[in-house]
Amino acid sequence: MAAAAPPPPPSDVPEPCMGPPETTPIGHPVFTRIRLATPLDVPFIHKLIHQMAVFEKLTHLFSATESSLASTLFLSPPFQSFTIFLLEISSSPIPPLLSTSPSFTPIEKTFNFDLPLDDPEKDAFSVHYGNDQVVIAGFVLFFPNYSTFLAKPGFYVEDLFVRECYRRKGFGKMLLSAVAKQAVKMGYGRVEWVVLDWNVNAIKFYEQMGAQVLPEWRICRLTGDSLQAYQNANV
Amino acid sequence: MAAAAPPPPPSDVPEPCMGPPETTPIGHPVFTRIRLATPLDVPFIHKLIHQMAVFEKLTHLFSATESSLASTLFLSPPFQSFTIFLLEISSSPIPPLLSTSPSFTPIEKTFNFDLPLDDPEKDAFSVHYGNDQVVIAGFVLFFPNYSTFLAKPGFYVEDLFVRECYRRKGFGKMLLSAVAKQAVKMGYGRVEWVVLDWNVNAIKFYEQMGAQVLPEWRICRLTGDSLQAYQNANV
Repeated sequence: MAAAAPPPPPSDVPEPCMGPPETTPIGHPVFTRIRLATPLDVPFIHKLIHQMAVFEKLTHLFSATESSLASTLFLSPPFQSFTIFLLEISSSPIPPLLSTSPSFTPIEKTFNFDLPLDDPEKDAFSVHYGNDQVVIAGFVLFFPNYSTFLAKPGFYVEDLFVRECYRRKGFGKMLLSAVAKQAVKMGYGRVEWVVLDWNVNAIKFYEQMGAQVLPEWRICRLTGDSLQAYQNANV
Repeated sequence: MAAAAPPPPPSDVPEPCMGPPETTPIGHPVFTRIRLATPLDVPFIHKLIHQMAVFEKLTHLFSATESSLASTLFLSPPFQSFTIFLLEISSSPIPPLLSTSPSFTPIEKTFNFDLPLDDPEKDAFSVHYGNDQVVIAGFVLFFPNYSTFLAKPGFYVEDLFVRECYRRKGFGKMLLSAVAKQAVKMGYGRVEWVVLDWNVNAIKFYEQMGAQVLPEWRICRLTGDSLQAYQNANV
């Protein structure tokens, strides 16, 4: 499914750490990094997708396993096919990655919040870099699509999800912005995703960020038995 | 744009050549083949896309050139990224291809119509195989998408187009069925596309073929200046 747990309208988004330098934060500094997911992250990805299914009340449609994710993701270099950015969060500076993809430089931002972020599932989403521990707070999964009118690829955002305790902080916007940045870097023409028509807060937020919400198009889906049957459709 | 010129409701679709064997057709036999497009087909593809833009009254959005198509298509093996099937039509048997992709066997069907098909643009869409001439009648452009709930890829059909003089013959259905067949062959979970909500004939046709039309999802698009601006969105 797509575009779950959209980021809130900008009015809910706290100001980023603007005034004081990062070395002398006031309040509660939160260090964040967006990086490419790797096959080692599959257990986190599986748990995040399951949480998204719970959020959308669609667990009856959820059949992904760690094994099925591992066998269908990471088969192509980043950005050429299905690609996942993970959002890492820590209360202390995040150590540099030991190895990075030449095609993507991780994006780092430091926030400063009045209250500490309390994560009841911290242990289940922890990544250890030596003695440092960071937490996976969300992800975005996207892949190339194509506009024949523009004769240009774009990116389609299939999923955008931020865990509950990290919502309304601007992290969803940070993930989506990272996809937009990569699209521009690659000379792509568009970033697209879908939203539920009753999710008026999300629609308002997307429109405020400059996105068009196309009113007339409807998604058609052929799946299951109908897909099996139609492959041999007698024309 | 997507899913232009959808095939007509089944009631409009002539019966295929069922009774007599193909060697002794009654009426006007029409030989068809669906094959993978190659870079040599770019001039045809460009003309087809332009006709689609005219049909959709969206020529103001059309900026593709043969050069921009050539530089963005055919960069990956078939089915791994943007993939085009072409529909070839001839009044005589179509000669076998000299080289084919190991990943796709062309699909051939023989139709038998009461009246000959008159193609006023035959010369502009002709392909020559030795002394034989066939005509490009339509195309479908599709690429992999991904369902995280299924942990399976699918195919997204970006464009489906049949030239005007070949419509209402079942050729659109033949192209879409070829995509469904390939999806099943590859173990994919879905084929998806979009349709305009006012195109009730198309919606009825898609529902009759077993597709679900999802009423609640809306497409969001970030493009042009908004895309440029959002890449550095200040969260």
